[in-house]
Amino acid sequence: MAQDKSPRRPRAETPKGFRDYFGAEVTERAAMLAQIAEVYHRYGFDPLETSAVETVEALGKFLPDVDRPNEGVFAWQDEDQDWLALRYDLTAPLARVAAQYRNDLPSPYRRYAMGPVWRNEKPGPGRFRQFYQCDADTVGSASVAADAEICAMLSDALETVGIPRGDYLVKVNNRKVLNGVMEVAGVLDPADPDKFAHERGIVLRAIDKIDRLGPDGVRALLGAGRKDESGDFTKGAGLSEAQAEVVMGFMAARRADAASTVARLRELVGTSAIGAEGVQELETIAALLTAQGYGPDRIDLDPGVVRGLGYYTGPVFEAELTFEILDEKGRKRSFGSVAGGGRYDDLVKRFTGQAVPATGVSIGVDRLLAALRAKGRIGQEATPGPVVVTVMDRDRMADYMAIVSDLRAAGIRAEMYLGNPKNFGNQLKYADKRQSPVAIIQGADEAARGVVQVKDLILGAKIAAAASVEEWKAQPAQTEVPRADLVAAVRRILGRP
Amino acid sequence: MAQDKSPRRPRAETPKGFRDYFGAEVTERAAMLAQIAEVYHRYGFDPLETSAVETVEALGKFLPDVDRPNEGVFAWQDEDQDWLALRYDLTAPLARVAAQYRNDLPSPYRRYAMGPVWRNEKPGPGRFRQFYQCDADTVGSASVAADAEICAMLSDALETVGIPRGDYLVKVNNRKVLNGVMEVAGVLDPADPDKFAHERGIVLRAIDKIDRLGPDGVRALLGAGRKDESGDFTKGAGLSEAQAEVVMGFMAARRADAASTVARLRELVGTSAIGAEGVQELETIAALLTAQGYGPDRIDLDPGVVRGLGYYTGPVFEAELTFEILDEKGRKRSFGSVAGGGRYDDLVKRFTGQAVPATGVSIGVDRLLAALRAKGRIGQEATPGPVVVTVMDRDRMADYMAIVSDLRAAGIRAEMYLGNPKNFGNQLKYADKRQSPVAIIQGADEAARGVVQVKDLILGAKIAAAASVEEWKAQPAQTEVPRADLVAAVRRILGRP
Repeated sequence: MAQDKSPRRPRAETPKGFRDYFGAEVTERAAMLAQIAEVYHRYGFDPLETSAVETVEALGKFLPDVDRPNEGVFAWQDEDQDWLALRYDLTAPLARVAAQYRNDLPSPYRRYAMGPVWRNEKPGPGRFRQFYQCDADTVGSASVAADAEICAMLSDALETVGIPRGDYLVKVNNRKVLNGVMEVAGVLDPADPDKFAHERGIVLRAIDKIDRLGPDGVRALLGAGRKDESGDFTKGAGLSEAQAEVVMGFMAARRADAASTVARLRELVGTSAIGAEGVQELETIAALLTAQGYGPDRIDLDPGVVRGLGYYTGPVFEAELTFEILDEKGRKRSFGSVAGGGRYDDLVKRFTGQAVPATGVSIGVDRLLAALRAKGRIGQEATPGPVVVTVMDRDRMADYMAIVSDLRAAGIRAEMYLGNPKNFGNQLKYADKRQSPVAIIQGADEAARGVVQVKDLILGAKIAAAASVEEWKAQPAQTEVPRADLVAAVRRILGRP
Repeated sequence: MAQDKSPRRPRAETPKGFRDYFGAEVTERAAMLAQIAEVYHRYGFDPLETSAVETVEALGKFLPDVDRPNEGVFAWQDEDQDWLALRYDLTAPLARVAAQYRNDLPSPYRRYAMGPVWRNEKPGPGRFRQFYQCDADTVGSASVAADAEICAMLSDALETVGIPRGDYLVKVNNRKVLNGVMEVAGVLDPADPDKFAHERGIVLRAIDKIDRLGPDGVRALLGAGRKDESGDFTKGAGLSEAQAEVVMGFMAARRADAASTVARLRELVGTSAIGAEGVQELETIAALLTAQGYGPDRIDLDPGVVRGLGYYTGPVFEAELTFEILDEKGRKRSFGSVAGGGRYDDLVKRFTGQAVPATGVSIGVDRLLAALRAKGRIGQEATPGPVVVTVMDRDRMADYMAIVSDLRAAGIRAEMYLGNPKNFGNQLKYADKRQSPVAIIQGADEAARGVVQVKDLILGAKIAAAASVEEWKAQPAQTEVPRADLVAAVRRILGRP
């Protein structure tokens, strides 16, 4: 084939931070999404699919740790100069839908959604700019029973996709308790809620980084600030040592059981009204979950969980996988968070002015798939390749296609070799690359006699690995059958009666 | 709830030309995609999922009828000033993948892909800027057996999703034949292929509009041009009457059977080498399909099909639904095209300089769903709503959640009412809106006696529609059962043993 001399060829590259998914990567994800959808459906949630594109004003600005000028989203101007953007999560579009269709939707509205979201962030190892989320939310319920239900459902979903009990923990906390602690620490004044908002943001983000930075790193961020390994300095919240101590005490408030944790939190929030409300909510959630049989081996209170997003207003939750995996450098590390969520009572109000309580969870499907692969729970058995009908005689394509057609009609995955048939070795190499279980061969001689050769490639590979040259030449993995018996012969090899 | 006085609330609106999909709209599409994927899988095609975002240079410019400055795509510049865009189809990303992974993929590479694509076009009734495609392509095969296979698979896919034989037709044509006709008409010079390229583009688009414009409209566009109903003038290809006659003759070349159509086309292309090659290919495709039992009731040659996209180089195909539906104004019209494709041998070459033959088809899933809905073949049975456990006593939420939990554990779709429980009527209205088959009621009295009320809402609705007040009051649709028998009682009503 002639080379094109044109100097300006486009580069065949995925854009930076994006990737392609092949074969089992696609079907395994689809299977997981279907399993989770089944759980969500059983809980009474209805599917919703919004488009990938929203107006920037509808999306709002809620991404944490925004380090880029366009604030973490991919955005552009349309022909009317309005700004559009790709959704960065499935919650912001839900808030828009809940406001737009508020007169038509049932209330409370339980909905689930699954699909890709996009973040205009610095790509990193295993961190992509497009990834899947699988969310469930209840809009229009102020009851913490809605939060408890989400936690129970998350636990069920994780077990349904193959994370056994003991390998995960759904941790529950409450932003109101954190606010109570902030009040005690003197960085929240109930009479002037906007005061110290900047400092509280730093405190929130610092707590959220405890797994990565450790207690000393968090303490530094609560105080003057922290210099990281590269020498970059992050300014802290400026809390005194005594103030920081209150916050650190909150993070370490988890006790052996929910009742003891609640008691400890009640001490910590002191006389704060919002804090007391938050502790009461946690106590109710724990009681509701216990009544349904969800014990602390599945769902537990953990004041260390705060979630990074700014819009949460009450209970927050996070599902952590508790087993260890080896990272790219061979070091053991715990797998960490695969899902998170919480109550966000003000997102719909942005649109309507009317408060609409809401709560929900988002499962990071790609991370969950990675966890299952790391544990060897999926991806063990390769998808069976197709039966390959080889082409011995270019003029008899119609015959080979009829063979393929018969196999397909019998429900057997099959294809005719469609490359250049001249080199027969290439055809068998192709069958090998496709992980074909069976190859069909029919030359002019076989055609004249009304037979086909059926080659068992899996048995053939075993014999090739173990047998002597003589045994190999005897080719017991290849048998001749009448053309009319072809489907039955292939079925026998595939192990289907 | 207090009204927010802020003057600048975001609008709760889907961006112009986009829409939301609720409930069955989502699950019916997912079911159809799964059905089509099963057919593609059986034919040996492997799944591929590329990201929604590609570089503009990788996408190329192949959209027909571009009437907008940014050429039909949604595009923006990234931080390195490179242009990125949302994919407008699934073929351009495949060409990029085939080039990028050419050393790793099997050859030929059969792949399928499904997902949304985006077009920055004027929205219209039923025409959205995001819609689903479901594609299958074979990259690396120059054989028209690959084209024939795609047509057979398309036919199988349509029947699998519920379009019966007789209600659709896969029509096959060949761009090479059209080029032969252009040569005869004097608008293609084999010695100088770029000459008259502009005129040929107009001819191509004119032919593609035959269904909408009729023969007179097409003839006008082949000649001086055409004034539409609004008075806008579209410049024509400037062909003489004799030249136009050749092109019109081509479009009307379909005969009663494939052999006669082939014979007629052979006359029309005269001595054109490329035309003769195209006719030969059509003859081979027809023979291969006949050998597999695909007769003209499923797949037929039709020279009227050209497809709008610029990149096709050989066989082109289109699946048309042949039944009539009523349009929004109550007029009968034929449903038209739901899938199309063809051979595009030069798309991969754009990247590598190396010619890589390829062919494929794209099914317009949203149009196909609309067709099935218009024929009443899906959407007849509403998805069953959940059993609703009502809340009579706010202090006994844990008991109600335990009831829900028991039902869910038994595989029954169920939920507790999570709105404000004060008004019991609202709870039953909610159950009605959710199309619940059963409501569960347990007041303090029932709780004390260890029983629950099970209300058959479907039977109840029937009685309410037909019965007298006395019968209604007797409430035969509501029964009291021991709490321990609850799951069994609900199962009985749902008709499950």
